[in-house]
This record gives sequence, structure tokens and C-alpha cells, in this order.
Amino acid sequence: MRNIRLTVSYDGTSYSGFQTQPHGKTVQDHLERAIWMLSGETVKITSSGRTDAGVHARAQVINFTTASQIPAERWCLALNSRLPKDIVALCADEVPLSFHSRRSAKRKTYTYTIRIARMPDVFNRRYQYHHHSPLNVEAMRDALAAIIGQHDFSSFCSIRTVTESRIRTIYDAWIDEEPDLMSGGAEGTGQLKFYFCGNGFLYNMVRILVGTLIQVGEGKRSADDMAAILRGRNRALAGPTAVAQGLMLWNVEYAD
Amino acid sequence: MRNIRLTVSYDGTSYSGFQTQPHGKTVQDHLERAIWMLSGETVKITSSGRTDAGVHARAQVINFTTASQIPAERWCLALNSRLPKDIVALCADEVPLSFHSRRSAKRKTYTYTIRIARMPDVFNRRYQYHHHSPLNVEAMRDALAAIIGQHDFSSFCSIRTVTESRIRTIYDAWIDEEPDLMSGGAEGTGQLKFYFCGNGFLYNMVRILVGTLIQVGEGKRSADDMAAILRGRNRALAGPTAVAQGLMLWNVEYAD
Repeated sequence: MRNIRLTVSYDGTSYSGFQTQPHGKTVQDHLERAIWMLSGETVKITSSGRTDAGVHARAQVINFTTASQIPAERWCLALNSRLPKDIVALCADEVPLSFHSRRSAKRKTYTYTIRIARMPDVFNRRYQYHHHSPLNVEAMRDALAAIIGQHDFSSFCSIRTVTESRIRTIYDAWIDEEPDLMSGGAEGTGQLKFYFCGNGFLYNMVRILVGTLIQVGEGKRSADDMAAILRGRNRALAGPTAVAQGLMLWNVEYAD
Repeated sequence: MRNIRLTVSYDGTSYSGFQTQPHGKTVQDHLERAIWMLSGETVKITSSGRTDAGVHARAQVINFTTASQIPAERWCLALNSRLPKDIVALCADEVPLSFHSRRSAKRKTYTYTIRIARMPDVFNRRYQYHHHSPLNVEAMRDALAAIIGQHDFSSFCSIRTVTESRIRTIYDAWIDEEPDLMSGGAEGTGQLKFYFCGNGFLYNMVRILVGTLIQVGEGKRSADDMAAILRGRNRALAGPTAVAQGLMLWNVEYAD
């Protein structure tokens, strides 16, 4: 048997999330079907982590074992011709049988994109949250600094989280400001891209962090609140869960 | 009566083009329906020019006359709540009754986007032409220089063109090279954005220019061919019509 690692990009708009579920159209189902069409094998793929309904992935990593002799470099083009256009296999390699896309992952990075402009951008409407009015980016940067490091993120995970430990390490988190080409660079318009790089993320964690940061940016909360919310370890202290469409699994890093 | 000018952005993917036609779902139909829902008037809108099926607009300009007293600044938000999500009114103002979005236009700019990478970009798949292998950008720039100025563009328009004069002026045309964030900046990958700014464009003109430039970039034609094709005034001399999805009406400029 061989262990194949695939890096996969997908537009999550039309899917009920990554992971197979009883009544849903999922990315995993399409990938497993494409592998079956190609190799004739019924495989169960493993991913670096599921993404929710409507969430996107620039570079999700999956792996699966196969008896097929298809060379690693042929998998991508062959799978892409059997996948819908909103799922693309970007690269493939053969890895040791011990490799596990979730357990072997060292760092994961998520991005969240907010467009600030009076009107939405039709071309990126599926991949960003549209905020009509300006946000205080400096206050959001101050708030973001409080989450870097190892913390108990109980305040920033869904109450439906079943994981025992809510301790995670955020290695880095920052905001990139980009001018908004579509609105011709009008004052107060632009795109904010939040990056969150950590050893793992709890259920809805990035979306609740962003929902809270938006309140800071709107002046509804002070940047200092962030540390107090963390210490409180209570979901009710944090802000709302930001919409799924702005979230993207950016990349997953491994020891190799 | 008042004359209202609207700047409109649309994702052309789901439409049979801008202009109303017997059996099509068009952008014009949706705009006229939204205006009717808002003001109760059956208006016929005028545009700066139609765009074909699948072609996008960042800033198409339209105008229509109305007896409604709705202030100009209220039109956009009111129309957007009555338009599908892939059509957005960006701004509105009241203009003299003599203003005509096509006849008053001084300059129009179209862009055409080519992604060069082994795999397609799922997030921009609707807005770009995907080319698997590198293109010689310098040769394409040399070829592009030949079309600047006033020329008879008969070689670069559809044989279905009914316009009498095929003489148009290209004020400027250039190629912007942008790194491809999605493929992590791998060598030989990137995005090429072609800009064409002129006093008007014939049917399929930009797409045939791009189709010919791609052949130059692939080394199938020399950059010098461009001038000879122009002189020949024969559609058969030029390259194929590039796919619609890479084309976007970028902006329209008026004397004011």
C-alpha cells in the first residue's frame, strides 16, 4: 500500500462543508468519488481538519492509502478531470505510511477577509464579508495581540465543541490592509485580511475571534476587552460568530 | 423628466449578455425590472455598449429618464435590494437630458485576464482564462504596441459585425504582470492583465486581439505579425476569439 498526500483547493460556497455527512453535498464525497472513478478503490480520505459549510480552502491537505500504481505526479490532472470545477487538486506526493494529514500537521493558517465599502464587490462576494462602514484597524490590531501565545480559548469556541482541551497556541496573527481596486480606491474603502496561524483551532474559533474583533473595530468594545474575554473562559463573553463565507483555510504545514 | 446615470458592476457568468434579447436572461432585463419595482415606471435603459454572454463589467454606465422624485443618491441602495447578487449599482447621479451613456462616452477601457499556472484557481475561475504553460510576455508587449493609434480593425472583428466603419482609435494598451498568490508564487505562474483603452470597440475586437496575442506569447506567431494582420483587413488573418470569461468592461469615461 502507498500513502498519497494531496493538496486541494475548493470554493466552499456550494458545499455542506468538507466532511461527509448523512444528508449533505460535501467536498470529501466528491474527492472520494473521483478517486474511485480513477482507481476503482473505495477509499476513506483523512484531512488536516474539516471546514464548515460555506468555508473555503486555498490549500487543504488530505491523504489516503491506495494499492494503485498510478505515479504521484499523475493524480492531480487525473482527479481534476473527474472533479467539479469548484474543487481542484493542486499537487500530490507519496509520503510514509505513518503520515496522517491531521495528526502530523505542525501549523495551520486560516484567513478571514472583510471588504469595507459602501457597496459589495460582485466578483468576490462569495469570499468575503461585506462591511458597509469603516473599521478602526489599529484597535483591532491591539486586540489581536492579546490572543497570541498559548491560551484556553473556551470563550472563542462554539458551545457545541466536544474537544476536552480548549488550550491552543496561536503562533502569529495579523491584519493585512489592501486597497480596494474595485471601488477605485475611494477613501475609507479597502479589504482587510486577517491571518491566524496556530497549532490547531477549535470549532468556530476563527469566526468568533473575527466577530469579536469586528465589534472592537466598530468601537462597541475596547481592544483591552480581548484579554478579559480570554480569561473569562465563557463563550457568552465574546462577540457573534462571523459569517462562514469570509473564512479560508490558507495552508497547513508539516515537519517535512 | 430627469436623466439618471448609474454605474453598474456585474458578474456576467449567468447572463446571456447585457442587452435584452428574445430568449435570454440579461442584465438589462434585471435592471429594468428593478427600476420598475422601485418607481413603477417601465423604462428603457441605454448603456455605454452591450457586453456579450459571460463577459463581466466592473463599471458599466447606463442612463434612463424618469418622472420619479427619488433623489439620485437613493437609487443605488434601493435598486440593490431589488437586484440579484451578481448585479450591483455602484453610484448614481442626475445628468443633463442630453447625456447618452453610449454617444457621450469619450473613452472605454476593457481588461482581459489570463492566469498562467499548471492548475486553475478555483476562486477566480469565472473571471479569467486559464493557460497551463508560460507565455512570452515581452513578445506580447511588442505585438500590442502595433495596435496603438487609429487603425482599421477589420481583421480584429467578428465577421458578423454590421458597423459600417471599422476604424477605431486605441489610446493605450498594456499588460500588467501580477504574481499568483494562490499558487504560492511558484516559478512561471502568475496573472496577466491586459488593458485596452480606446474610443470604441468592434464586436469581439478585444477577444480576437487577445486570441492573437496568446499565439504570439506561445511562439506560434511573431510579434511583427500584428502590423501585417492589421494591414490585411481580413478576419481570417488574426487568431481565434479568446473565451468570454476573461473579459471585463473596466470603465467608461465622459467629458465631465
